[in-house]
Amino acid sequence: MEQERVDSGQLIGFTTRILEKLGVTPQDAAIAADAIVSADLRGVESHGVAHLAQFYVQRIQKGFINIHPNITISSQAPATAIIDGDNGIGFVVGHRAMSEAIERAGKVGVGLVAVRNSTHFGASAYYAMMALPHDMIGLAMSSTGPIVFPPGSKARGVGTNPISLAVPAGVESAFVLDMATSVVAGGKVSEAMRKGLPLPAGWAVDNQGGITTDPRAVFAGGGGLLPLGGTPELGVYKGFALAVAVEILCNILSGSVAGLLQTVEPGAAGNKCDHFFGAIRIDGFLPVDTFKAKMDELIQAYHALPKVEGVANIFLAGEMEAATERARRTEGIPLHEKVSASLREIGQQLGVPYDL
Amino acid sequence: MEQERVDSGQLIGFTTRILEKLGVTPQDAAIAADAIVSADLRGVESHGVAHLAQFYVQRIQKGFINIHPNITISSQAPATAIIDGDNGIGFVVGHRAMSEAIERAGKVGVGLVAVRNSTHFGASAYYAMMALPHDMIGLAMSSTGPIVFPPGSKARGVGTNPISLAVPAGVESAFVLDMATSVVAGGKVSEAMRKGLPLPAGWAVDNQGGITTDPRAVFAGGGGLLPLGGTPELGVYKGFALAVAVEILCNILSGSVAGLLQTVEPGAAGNKCDHFFGAIRIDGFLPVDTFKAKMDELIQAYHALPKVEGVANIFLAGEMEAATERARRTEGIPLHEKVSASLREIGQQLGVPYDL
Repeated sequence: MEQERVDSGQLIGFTTRILEKLGVTPQDAAIAADAIVSADLRGVESHGVAHLAQFYVQRIQKGFINIHPNITISSQAPATAIIDGDNGIGFVVGHRAMSEAIERAGKVGVGLVAVRNSTHFGASAYYAMMALPHDMIGLAMSSTGPIVFPPGSKARGVGTNPISLAVPAGVESAFVLDMATSVVAGGKVSEAMRKGLPLPAGWAVDNQGGITTDPRAVFAGGGGLLPLGGTPELGVYKGFALAVAVEILCNILSGSVAGLLQTVEPGAAGNKCDHFFGAIRIDGFLPVDTFKAKMDELIQAYHALPKVEGVANIFLAGEMEAATERARRTEGIPLHEKVSASLREIGQQLGVPYDL
Repeated sequence: MEQERVDSGQLIGFTTRILEKLGVTPQDAAIAADAIVSADLRGVESHGVAHLAQFYVQRIQKGFINIHPNITISSQAPATAIIDGDNGIGFVVGHRAMSEAIERAGKVGVGLVAVRNSTHFGASAYYAMMALPHDMIGLAMSSTGPIVFPPGSKARGVGTNPISLAVPAGVESAFVLDMATSVVAGGKVSEAMRKGLPLPAGWAVDNQGGITTDPRAVFAGGGGLLPLGGTPELGVYKGFALAVAVEILCNILSGSVAGLLQTVEPGAAGNKCDHFFGAIRIDGFLPVDTFKAKMDELIQAYHALPKVEGVANIFLAGEMEAATERARRTEGIPLHEKVSASLREIGQQLGVPYDL
């Protein structure tokens, strides 16, 4: 089926106007819209405009998100700071915090910023990638509401807690790792549920901590996701340890508390997030050109590896997303009809014409 | 079978004297011996004295390791530095580099040090844990020789590349993540081979990149290990991306080249390693006591989770190793008879009495 394609600039404009209608300042609306549409450009639809109406707009309308936050910063050392997001829009708080990390890295070589009292910030890669034009390595993490079962437990104990690391290259695409520390993110389970398909064993557990292939057992059933590794034999303890590491850097180091210990307002599950950002100046180590040439050499060496029959290429993290972005910048972003319908509807509701 | 138990202090003394006999300076020998025996204390025998004779001593004797290295440092920013290990003993180079990271963190809040031209440094956790008494978070990574197959390739392309993160707590044990980014480290495959057992599907591939359960197919057969995740369905791309991230921070950022691009002298496979170390001052974010109390609260919340039948506790990373260390500091370190025999033999060869 031919999908409707929209221009990314126009989609950013529409999203900005929607947020402005909700009372968000033009500057903050533009930041949030860019982050949201950036996910669509990179083919990461799970964090794009598909969630604008049902997720971000609703949460602002319900008052779960503070659109005029008093974002404050405290710093005890040149390379480090804590930001309190005052329950602001995650995109805006995240952008402010990553900018702070980049500024500190500019001065002393590294900047690390832990963030408390923020909300869902979309795709982690967006913030890590903010470091790239500065010739820095970027790091972004977020805690999420607990939906993952620690190994051996029969309760949710930790979030899907994504980690992103972005590293510039020369002629090749930047290396951009962006992964949930669970085997899969929650969206994959919802997708299986919609399609009526069973889950692969190793993705999820039921509410007794037993492996399940029934997607209905996971969310409404009180079950949850498994940490990366899936089973003890295949290293589930590693995925759990990575998830806890994210929780420590985001929740504990920012002066918040881990998701397990937070109380959640009814209807606001998964709203509150803490984050952790880092920027590392490459020329604090070696000349940028040398570094980028070595990155290209590494990426090309992977491409040149002999491949299993039927495999076209050995892709490095972020390469496919970069290719998708290049294509969508010229050809437009394809939108599923349900998504464009939701945008039309929210546009009508708020008096923003959807004329992309 | 009752195993011989030896006092950790005496084992450190013996190991120190062995290294001194090879010409290592007393100071460097003491550092290396402490790092090696620390692995035995924590129950991580794969990085302890079991490998002293066959691995470290032999490599020094064969001249693969430079025991009088000219370790040099260059720094372009207060928070960052590169160290060139001049092919020195990995333990000594690693200790020097982590000390440098801690010193820089003391000044500006964070210290990151990339290391080139080093050799095998044992267990990553040793260096990350050096940060703990300074009330810092410690980070240590190492690249290793390529033995892991990137997804889709039929060749080795990346090392097992371990990551360690150590975080202090209050009354609870420190959180110490220490994981290979492959499903398992090579030692597990060697163990299965010795015992004549098949491998679980998902650990390894044969030399065509096909999943294998035959341990003989892995090393001598030209096969290799799989990145964490194991299969595309269970997230092998995440493990591969983590391994490449380690390669970038260790090899590229230090000015070296990735393992895939290095030439290896015959017999010296897996000798050359690059590393990456980090130290983060907790009071650069918030008061140390506040942080530690929150860590205790988090760890205790995990312990209090309802458990699957038959599960005694939800262990956080490093807890079991800390319990083992406490026991072994008083009861001694149990040594397999083959290990004590190898120590006796190397002692006899070098004129160091094994009288523990």
